[in-house]
Amino acid sequence: MQKGKMFIISGPSGVGKSTVLHELFKNREDLYFSISATTREPREGEEDGVHYHFISVQRFQELIDAEALLEYAEYVGNFYGTPKKYVDRAMNDGKDVILDIEVQGALQVKTKRPDTVRIFIAPPSWEELERRLTSRGTDSPEKVQKRLLRAKSELQTADVYDYFVINDSVENAVRELSAIMLAEHCKPADRMKILSE
Amino acid sequence: MQKGKMFIISGPSGVGKSTVLHELFKNREDLYFSISATTREPREGEEDGVHYHFISVQRFQELIDAEALLEYAEYVGNFYGTPKKYVDRAMNDGKDVILDIEVQGALQVKTKRPDTVRIFIAPPSWEELERRLTSRGTDSPEKVQKRLLRAKSELQTADVYDYFVINDSVENAVRELSAIMLAEHCKPADRMKILSE
Repeated sequence: MQKGKMFIISGPSGVGKSTVLHELFKNREDLYFSISATTREPREGEEDGVHYHFISVQRFQELIDAEALLEYAEYVGNFYGTPKKYVDRAMNDGKDVILDIEVQGALQVKTKRPDTVRIFIAPPSWEELERRLTSRGTDSPEKVQKRLLRAKSELQTADVYDYFVINDSVENAVRELSAIMLAEHCKPADRMKILSE
Repeated sequence: MQKGKMFIISGPSGVGKSTVLHELFKNREDLYFSISATTREPREGEEDGVHYHFISVQRFQELIDAEALLEYAEYVGNFYGTPKKYVDRAMNDGKDVILDIEVQGALQVKTKRPDTVRIFIAPPSWEELERRLTSRGTDSPEKVQKRLLRAKSELQTADVYDYFVINDSVENAVRELSAIMLAEHCKPADRMKILSE
């Protein structure tokens, strides 16, 4: 069986990444969505092993010491990381793995696993991103501007990414994501193994 | 408008490349199939500008001198080459261009146009390629063995190629080809132009 590949999917707040990923995962038994470990408390409705692996700070430290995390970062006083264990198991089962992580995490993973494919989901335009952030109604105008600035600065580090998917429509974005994942399985490294048999 | 990209599609005799390309081109107004120039005489039913651009040896030499060919080669006493003119026009019109050429031509094009994407259509196995060559009934067993040897030697130069499409079924091969072409349009070089506007 062919081993699965690892795909990092990043994108600025408001770009519609969760909707795109939700659509991508429909009827795709061959995909595995990586669940992060975190030291923060579960929120209402969040389940251990479904939304996150909820662990203690001590346990998180143990995972770091054992080099059992592909990447980790602190965010507002809590730690978040990607456990290697589940990712490797899925890949060995022939499943492609999706990591929903940000630019810093993408850099860490790329160092450890150079064959990881990194995809950035971008808005069709900055005006459209501003419109989407505003229409959510959850952020103040100032917060919206801060998110926009952050998104633009993220794009400055965009040479970390191998592909850019523009989320002009969910359907198009999913079509492009699926195409990228299939195309990556046609790369010589994968295929020569089959052909030299 | 986004400029089209150039794709080289190669594959050994008997792999089913023409069938795959025929299917790929169905309902695809956004694709352009490059027509070669040749110094050989038209065969019965062949039309100038459809199957080939039929030109004189003198004219072919003029095209070489004017650097108007992307690649050219001699085959059994006749010359075959890819005129730049039509390819560039199609790409400027935003169309993706398919060049159906062999390994040597692929090397020449890559030197002149490093951003060309090269795809090799491979058989699912050597046994299957032998079966397909034999079942065509056009070649003697010796000729079939020669074609097989040539196919295997072509695969030795396969690091010239960016992707391998395995033609286990026409449907799968077309799906992979289409995915590769779409994925290539998601590369940073193309997308950053849009996003920096």
